[in-house]
Amino acid sequence: MAMTGVLRPGHAQLRVLDLEESVQWYTDVMGLVPMGRDQQGRAYFKTRAERDHNSVVLRQADQAGIDFFAFKVLDKATLEDFDRKLQAYGVKTERIPAGELLETGERVRFKIPTGHTIELYAEKTDVGNGIGYQDPDVDVLDGPGIRPIRMDHCLLYGGDIDGNVKLFTEVLGFTLVERVKLEDGKTDLAVWLTCSAKAHDIAMVRHGEDGKLHHVSFQMPSWESVLRAADIMSVNRVSIDIGPTRHGITQGTTIYFFDPSGNRLETFCGGYDHYPDMHPITWSWEHVGRGIFYHDRKLNDAFLSVVT
Amino acid sequence: MAMTGVLRPGHAQLRVLDLEESVQWYTDVMGLVPMGRDQQGRAYFKTRAERDHNSVVLRQADQAGIDFFAFKVLDKATLEDFDRKLQAYGVKTERIPAGELLETGERVRFKIPTGHTIELYAEKTDVGNGIGYQDPDVDVLDGPGIRPIRMDHCLLYGGDIDGNVKLFTEVLGFTLVERVKLEDGKTDLAVWLTCSAKAHDIAMVRHGEDGKLHHVSFQMPSWESVLRAADIMSVNRVSIDIGPTRHGITQGTTIYFFDPSGNRLETFCGGYDHYPDMHPITWSWEHVGRGIFYHDRKLNDAFLSVVT
Amino acid sequence: MAMTGVLRPGHAQLRVLDLEESVQWYTDVMGLVPMGRDQQGRAYFKTRAERDHNSVVLRQADQAGIDFFAFKVLDKATLEDFDRKLQAYGVKTERIPAGELLETGERVRFKIPTGHTIELYAEKTDVGNGIGYQDPDVDVLDGPGIRPIRMDHCLLYGGDIDGNVKLFTEVLGFTLVERVKLEDGKTDLAVWLTCSAKAHDIAMVRHGEDGKLHHVSFQMPSWESVLRAADIMSVNRVSIDIGPTRHGITQGTTIYFFDPSGNRLETFCGGYDHYPDMHPITWSWEHVGRGIFYHDRKLNDAFLSVVT
Amino acid sequence: MAMTGVLRPGHAQLRVLDLEESVQWYTDVMGLVPMGRDQQGRAYFKTRAERDHNSVVLRQADQAGIDFFAFKVLDKATLEDFDRKLQAYGVKTERIPAGELLETGERVRFKIPTGHTIELYAEKTDVGNGIGYQDPDVDVLDGPGIRPIRMDHCLLYGGDIDGNVKLFTEVLGFTLVERVKLEDGKTDLAVWLTCSAKAHDIAMVRHGEDGKLHHVSFQMPSWESVLRAADIMSVNRVSIDIGPTRHGITQGTTIYFFDPSGNRLETFCGGYDHYPDMHPITWSWEHVGRGIFYHDRKLNDAFLSVVT
Repeated sequence: MAMTGVLRPGHAQLRVLDLEESVQWYTDVMGLVPMGRDQQGRAYFKTRAERDHNSVVLRQADQAGIDFFAFKVLDKATLEDFDRKLQAYGVKTERIPAGELLETGERVRFKIPTGHTIELYAEKTDVGNGIGYQDPDVDVLDGPGIRPIRMDHCLLYGGDIDGNVKLFTEVLGFTLVERVKLEDGKTDLAVWLTCSAKAHDIAMVRHGEDGKLHHVSFQMPSWESVLRAADIMSVNRVSIDIGPTRHGITQGTTIYFFDPSGNRLETFCGGYDHYPDMHPITWSWEHVGRGIFYHDRKLNDAFLSVVT
Repeated sequence: MAMTGVLRPGHAQLRVLDLEESVQWYTDVMGLVPMGRDQQGRAYFKTRAERDHNSVVLRQADQAGIDFFAFKVLDKATLEDFDRKLQAYGVKTERIPAGELLETGERVRFKIPTGHTIELYAEKTDVGNGIGYQDPDVDVLDGPGIRPIRMDHCLLYGGDIDGNVKLFTEVLGFTLVERVKLEDGKTDLAVWLTCSAKAHDIAMVRHGEDGKLHHVSFQMPSWESVLRAADIMSVNRVSIDIGPTRHGITQGTTIYFFDPSGNRLETFCGGYDHYPDMHPITWSWEHVGRGIFYHDRKLNDAFLSVVT
Repeated sequence: MAMTGVLRPGHAQLRVLDLEESVQWYTDVMGLVPMGRDQQGRAYFKTRAERDHNSVVLRQADQAGIDFFAFKVLDKATLEDFDRKLQAYGVKTERIPAGELLETGERVRFKIPTGHTIELYAEKTDVGNGIGYQDPDVDVLDGPGIRPIRMDHCLLYGGDIDGNVKLFTEVLGFTLVERVKLEDGKTDLAVWLTCSAKAHDIAMVRHGEDGKLHHVSFQMPSWESVLRAADIMSVNRVSIDIGPTRHGITQGTTIYFFDPSGNRLETFCGGYDHYPDMHPITWSWEHVGRGIFYHDRKLNDAFLSVVT
Repeated sequence: MAMTGVLRPGHAQLRVLDLEESVQWYTDVMGLVPMGRDQQGRAYFKTRAERDHNSVVLRQADQAGIDFFAFKVLDKATLEDFDRKLQAYGVKTERIPAGELLETGERVRFKIPTGHTIELYAEKTDVGNGIGYQDPDVDVLDGPGIRPIRMDHCLLYGGDIDGNVKLFTEVLGFTLVERVKLEDGKTDLAVWLTCSAKAHDIAMVRHGEDGKLHHVSFQMPSWESVLRAADIMSVNRVSIDIGPTRHGITQGTTIYFFDPSGNRLETFCGGYDHYPDMHPITWSWEHVGRGIFYHDRKLNDAFLSVVT
């Protein structure tokens, strides 16, 4: 098949400091659909347009951050195959039984060189996007909240991003889309990788501390909807890091902002298509400011330092 | 790898009645980049954002229509593999030597059940999109013409679309995204198929005559750029079939219009992402009008009858 | 003062065949704010962004159409002044007492040469647009319905539009913005007039029958919101006359559609600014199709014939 | 008439440090149309959509800033009338003969309490906007540069803005649209005034030094064109102060940036209609950050300090 192996980002489990406040915020401000809670008390969400049961899982904790980020793979055989390949590559994997996350099949969990926990799974209940599979109408915007299209990708911070790139490209079939070099012109400061034809399904920045989250990103349908997202943030006094603006890297438009626990989120739109036959784009240290924030053309202090 | 096999539509060779007039029109009105001519006199074009050497090839002929539509595959080994699989499936293939099309590698050519000629190839020279692979800027709209992002897909008309679907899904790894049923509720009138995560890389409508072209489609970056395309068409007195409007099927926004030879083209934007784990959408005959043209909610006469 | 005399369209009273159905429709589909009913049973509406109490008044009747269209003038002295000028010009005026329409001051009512009833008034209660006059937030789109910015203008059909133009320009201070000539190159088929710096505050088309309504128009904030309006119409199976498309005249983008009683409404965006020192634009009969519908470049049958 | 007196901002004469560099920049980056030079060497520009001969005049000087800002009035009688009223009010006026500025009639020049030079004039040659007054087409974006619709307004800095407000409202017929109060809740820090139905035709901020320019502003047709403007600025390494973002005041979207001489310019879109019967909006000191920059919700250092 043309799309095989790892299909797309599937779910992210985030730690929040006050679950009830966060449930309210992800519902009312982000405009996500609450999909219930499990016995551990975790709260589940999906976007309206997503068909699978959940994509964002919130867990109450003392410290914000990301517990794990998961990718859906084509089918169960693919899942077994990846488990074998990961082990053969020297990565220790763990099986999380079906149902441990609501409406989600068995997961293969493993740690990547930057210390983050990644999961693969093949099954999550298709609950639909509300317009059905027969003679559907358009799902017109008709309520409050930012209402992104999908949970799209994340940007992780940690030490050994070279190890990550090797693992994601050689074992998981990802392709390098863009990279930023440090002042030495050789070492990668940051990389953007895709498992499909998007500009990014995951990205990583080299950082002193392992296991850190820079942001989880949500796709918006248009630059105008990015403006509406910024307006909603201001009406709700949400802390905005930067934006609306454009990235040079991926060329998508963007807002970075923070959930009530300090986890950075992104609403973005656009970004070019990237296929595995395409040449990656490289940014030199001299141009990294313009690469990250195309209009300001300089990094803000927060970009390289504030993570959860 | 995650994206393997057939990657994307690569080139379409169209027949035009007056080559010089057409070259002018595809350059000035469509805003495509002329990429030279070959010894046969064929004229080559790409969009500005496309990196490979060409995506539209024009050939002077007495009758408009499409000579062939081609898909780029991952690499040469994949090309060989598809040739073997096609032959094993009972499809006769032909090898077109590298260079027969400018800057294009060897092609595997075959006829599909609806009588259209399809090609696969693995190599086409990367000439870049003008912004480079090192510290690029944004390619801002700064000149005349519609300037689509990419040659995106085509819609073919012919008799045995069931045979096409079987071939594209079983041999070429495509996935069914949407379908329209005839009044009997069983027979497919039309199908939309993808080889990636787009809403369509090719589509087919059941039709009395084989080998016909309904339209070749070009992707636009925004609904506002679709409006600009319509304005450009009117300034240039281009014949518009319908639009700007929205499709119910794929939910993309669209204009159908005709090149000077009567070949229907489309400029479209949007359409949801479709992955191979997703359920296809089915349209009943009763709702086909809304499916094709979401706002008019009825087919215009031309949609089912005017083809080249 | 710079803006004096007639300020802007203020309210339109429309006849509807089924009041309850219409109230539901203007609330849910148009997204207007219901502002109560009066003792005669008339239903009042305003857009969210309008500050004055009402702009659309619905009256149950056996036949659809418009009872009257009103303009707000600067103040009571201006109202008195216009009454005197109208009478001096030979127009018979009538005083409608304050309160006859909810929250609306005294109105000066008169018939124009095409048989339509026009009103002037100076006072309507400022109920605000919900964001207040102190440190306001943006009123973000957060609910169902088309939600236009304002009731913007109307297009009336009748015989003596020359008489109308003379009255509106010589007595009421309007300016001619655009005109369409009949085949003789002399007679006006249609005229667009402004009392401010908009492309139109009222328009008229020459027609065999007096007192007819072509459409009442509502302003939208963007071309993207025009698309959303069209989607909402289709989700609600509203009868769409034409659009989304662009007018050559005024260059605004537009949808014409019908309320449940058959009154044509318009949602439009854009149109250039026109000041009284500017030259009007003239359209010849040969180009009228492109003038009315810039992309189709021909009139549809309904434009010249279907009125209420 | 409905629109009388002062119609709109007409021209701004800016001082630039290097005329040739500036002519290039206003042509290529701003996308203004060069309209020739006069005997003093001043360079003239208009936007493509403006019909009058010029709206921006550049003069080489040792220090950046604004020489004068002018408003077009309805006609010569109005000009005479304003001259009389200004003198009666105690403002000394000066007559600048027709032709002193290219294609511009006689001007009435005077100083306002904040030390800025303001001009009124009734005549400037209508050179048209290139699409003509007979059967026009749409002027589709087909070249480089930001290409605003019009020179729209300016924001001036100086001491006695109370005196300015009194002069503009009592003599020139302007209306107060929005105001920001200082911490005392009484003194105006800033005011926005209109002579038409726009959210602002001129604005002023209280400042220690008289005669200063904060910015001259150009209207853009859409939020998407504001993004394109920001992209063009970055491609050309133009210094961007802030944006793209939204103002709380007027609710328009905006970018502030600097010409090569350090004069701040703005490209903005939107802003609500304001008529003279409408209540002004007041911002308290506590909310001024959100009022100026709706998304950042704080003033940047430059806003209150950097002027030319």
